[in-house]
Amino acid sequence: MSSKKYAIGVDFGTESGRAALVDISNGHEVATAVHPYANGVIDDTLPGTDIKLEPDWALQDPNDYLEVFKTTIPAVLQQSGVDPADVVGLGVDFTACTMLPTTSDGTPLCFLPEWRNNPHAWVKLWKHHAAQPEANKLNQIAYQMGFDDLMNRYGGKISSEWFFPKAWQILDEAPEVYAAAGKLIEAADWVVWQLTGNETRNSCTAGYKAMWSKREGFPPNEFFRALDPRLENIVDEKMSRNISPLGAKAGGLTDEAAGWTGLLPGTAVAVANVDAHVAVPVGTVTEPGRMVIIMGTSNCHMVLGTEERVVPGMCGYVEDGIIPGLIGYEAGQSCVGDHFAWFTANCVPAAYEAEAARRGIDIHQLLEEKAAALKPGESGLLALDWWNGNRSVLVDVDLTGLLLGATLSTKPEEIYRALIEATAFGTRIIVETFEANGVPVNEIVTTGGLPNKNSLLMQIYADVTGRPLFIAGNMQGGAVGSAMHGAVAAGKAAGGFDSITEASRQMAGLRDVSYRPNPAAKAVYDQLFAEYMTLHDYFGRGANDVMKRLKSLKAQIRAG
Amino acid sequence: MSSKKYAIGVDFGTESGRAALVDISNGHEVATAVHPYANGVIDDTLPGTDIKLEPDWALQDPNDYLEVFKTTIPAVLQQSGVDPADVVGLGVDFTACTMLPTTSDGTPLCFLPEWRNNPHAWVKLWKHHAAQPEANKLNQIAYQMGFDDLMNRYGGKISSEWFFPKAWQILDEAPEVYAAAGKLIEAADWVVWQLTGNETRNSCTAGYKAMWSKREGFPPNEFFRALDPRLENIVDEKMSRNISPLGAKAGGLTDEAAGWTGLLPGTAVAVANVDAHVAVPVGTVTEPGRMVIIMGTSNCHMVLGTEERVVPGMCGYVEDGIIPGLIGYEAGQSCVGDHFAWFTANCVPAAYEAEAARRGIDIHQLLEEKAAALKPGESGLLALDWWNGNRSVLVDVDLTGLLLGATLSTKPEEIYRALIEATAFGTRIIVETFEANGVPVNEIVTTGGLPNKNSLLMQIYADVTGRPLFIAGNMQGGAVGSAMHGAVAAGKAAGGFDSITEASRQMAGLRDVSYRPNPAAKAVYDQLFAEYMTLHDYFGRGANDVMKRLKSLKAQIRAG
Repeated sequence: MSSKKYAIGVDFGTESGRAALVDISNGHEVATAVHPYANGVIDDTLPGTDIKLEPDWALQDPNDYLEVFKTTIPAVLQQSGVDPADVVGLGVDFTACTMLPTTSDGTPLCFLPEWRNNPHAWVKLWKHHAAQPEANKLNQIAYQMGFDDLMNRYGGKISSEWFFPKAWQILDEAPEVYAAAGKLIEAADWVVWQLTGNETRNSCTAGYKAMWSKREGFPPNEFFRALDPRLENIVDEKMSRNISPLGAKAGGLTDEAAGWTGLLPGTAVAVANVDAHVAVPVGTVTEPGRMVIIMGTSNCHMVLGTEERVVPGMCGYVEDGIIPGLIGYEAGQSCVGDHFAWFTANCVPAAYEAEAARRGIDIHQLLEEKAAALKPGESGLLALDWWNGNRSVLVDVDLTGLLLGATLSTKPEEIYRALIEATAFGTRIIVETFEANGVPVNEIVTTGGLPNKNSLLMQIYADVTGRPLFIAGNMQGGAVGSAMHGAVAAGKAAGGFDSITEASRQMAGLRDVSYRPNPAAKAVYDQLFAEYMTLHDYFGRGANDVMKRLKSLKAQIRAG
Repeated sequence: MSSKKYAIGVDFGTESGRAALVDISNGHEVATAVHPYANGVIDDTLPGTDIKLEPDWALQDPNDYLEVFKTTIPAVLQQSGVDPADVVGLGVDFTACTMLPTTSDGTPLCFLPEWRNNPHAWVKLWKHHAAQPEANKLNQIAYQMGFDDLMNRYGGKISSEWFFPKAWQILDEAPEVYAAAGKLIEAADWVVWQLTGNETRNSCTAGYKAMWSKREGFPPNEFFRALDPRLENIVDEKMSRNISPLGAKAGGLTDEAAGWTGLLPGTAVAVANVDAHVAVPVGTVTEPGRMVIIMGTSNCHMVLGTEERVVPGMCGYVEDGIIPGLIGYEAGQSCVGDHFAWFTANCVPAAYEAEAARRGIDIHQLLEEKAAALKPGESGLLALDWWNGNRSVLVDVDLTGLLLGATLSTKPEEIYRALIEATAFGTRIIVETFEANGVPVNEIVTTGGLPNKNSLLMQIYADVTGRPLFIAGNMQGGAVGSAMHGAVAAGKAAGGFDSITEASRQMAGLRDVSYRPNPAAKAVYDQLFAEYMTLHDYFGRGANDVMKRLKSLKAQIRAG
């Protein structure tokens, strides 16, 4: 046992789990290990069977999660040579809503031979989209019953990805599975249960995915009864009203889990968390006023507030949802890195590929270089960044992309830049909508795959939003953020921290580089943003629903 | 001398002149020859000097036109072995408005040493765009003086490419050249003068380019005085009120011109014509109801009517302008083949280039093949075909391109097809605007570079417009059309024809292939066209002038 203390975070992604053993004095990842799920994303046939899944299904095998603990934690201990006694705590974060039915003692139904061949007995992964009919009915009934305020907390719509549509789909399609399920539980909470022997429910998934709020709890039983009489008591029968704040200690590691991992029995385990939200304190943010954006294939925006505000068109706001004691607000853009990937795959001419190859750079670098030589407004182009619909603030998956202003001298790098600018305008609307509703956003901290890769994009976001942009010191927020929460669960007395704010101050930092708004560029972007807003509202708020009509015509024609 | 009779047509293009010796019994080109202009398009320095031209200037050397006669006509006679005595007539067609100042006897001022170094002494080519200030003033004054009806004949605007703005620019910038010019004349009429010794002025250029009409003549002198007092008598001083119908005989070949060409002195020479308009009888059209579209880098639409109708937003209508005795209506789309060329140069990925190379086909063929596999409406895309502004019916060069409906699964061939469809929608608006104003369009005959190259495009135009599409038997309309007019100038007694209708019946034909509207495709395109019209009017008629504002911002930023 040394004076140095460590915590371990385990980040459960879509394809694999990743553990990091982190030095809690500075947040450095001393060792990391990744374990790909043996059964991955199950969207074709049930493992070991010929049972075909329907379109839009996406399942997982809970045994894969246990295997992550059994392989990655021993690996990081071995790599680092750290004494398990110096590991003060363990935290996990997970994709969400990723949920499963279990028996009352937490055994997944799919582990039991009598249920193993029923797809509804398995884990429904976040991107399982087959509960859309249930989501539609739920939304309709919620408004019929006057739950407008509740719906406003979620931008007006409950997604088919969330907890109750998924639970209801089990009931609709496999009432016997629903009846056999002693529990319906987030996978995040289920893995913590497996480590500690204690069933806990975290405030982040409960709030963002299961319509729970700290002040009002879950929707009343009458609401669930209105959906289906058999759902009336779903919360009391299969869930829990006992919701734990993030950073709380779920329990100590059981002897069995200690055996799996090589850690000491009784090691503090934190209540579970969600992968995006855990990145916030890793971005040094534990207070209002600074937004964290995870920039990758899509953008996820998170900001904290002291008071509950209805911010129209956001993904949700949850008290204690990100940092205990504060309201966590979340928004999103469904197509950012995906936009640029689409563009480079479909719209970049062979001459550009050849130039990039000759110069030994990748095509994104070449495009960035050419686009960076342009001034704001110089291309005459303007785009709406809706290639994958609009998540905030219009909350409409049926909107599509638009490019305007092309001429015969329009160049690929001009289109590329216009697409970057369009995503920046999309972020600006989100920022301004928050501010207009009393949630200040003075600065932006970025993390995820894009910030270190594309400095043009970063400068454009600074110029468009008029806010300085910073970059989190640790770009793989998940595992470090979970380790922070593990250290908080341990508490100061055990060598950890008493709050996530304290942990963040010690373990998180920003990179030296930052991007400041250029006033001249900002002035031009103000003009372009005004044009963007006019088009945004014209096509997005009902004046001309051409995008939806074209999409519906397309669906009709493809269906024959 | 044999029983077979021939006529020669000479088509003066932008870079070269082309002669065809044509069998008048069937319209076949027996021999052809091309002569590139030695001085080509003069847009950098005056030939033989260091005198720099300003931006937007485009001049030509009239000597190059004479060289065309001296080289190409002897060449076609020699190639064919036809006896000059069997050549009954000669016709020419030209780009327009392409005009020059000459002395009273027709000597180009630029042939004279004292004027040779003055750029204004040379031919101003059709695409000389430096007279925009004069065009703007002219349009403003015309409306101030209440010449709305006259302006309506030209879609509401006189172009900077046309005769009076160019003449006025000479006066503004080189009053000494204007004063020295005994004549200002279309190059088309000037070359006929050189062949025959007779100055004639044709109704086509006078009508379409110089504000002349058969019933009202030129605008009154007070109009020209209002432009500039020195212009008051421009028509009487430097032009002519004696306008000749197309197909009329300008005169017989002079001894000198016979010497240049190897033809017999006295051979009938037709009044000059314009390259586009001469294609109409080559497309078999000499009566109302069938539109001719020249499809190339741009589209030029021509249709005949029996009565004068104001058709809003068309390029112009001129009695006797195309076929004597009928009203010739003209419209245009400024970006068609150019659209697809832009797309393939800028937006087609390397993988597609590689596939085309591997299969030994060109990239347009590959795109056509992939696009042809799609059904109407299947892509969910819709475009506005304004990459080079809109010529008809909005008459607005500041409009720009738009693409709507893109998603992350949008493929290049879908965009390619959407661009084709957009140009077809543009043609449909033109067709429907004609019909709504009493000018019927029942069928469409196509000619130019595109119809034989892209059968997908042809089918889409048929489906979108709901009209059958035919293809002219001779796709190089210019020279054959001029030969037809030469044969008409000769008259039946001399072995030619007494009317262009007769000549067309004998010498023109259609290809066997035609494209008929598919009712199912038409039904889908009716829906898409309704969406196109909504966007067309929203962006094109003032509801949202974002395209103009972006273009103006772009100009401002490029100017620094």
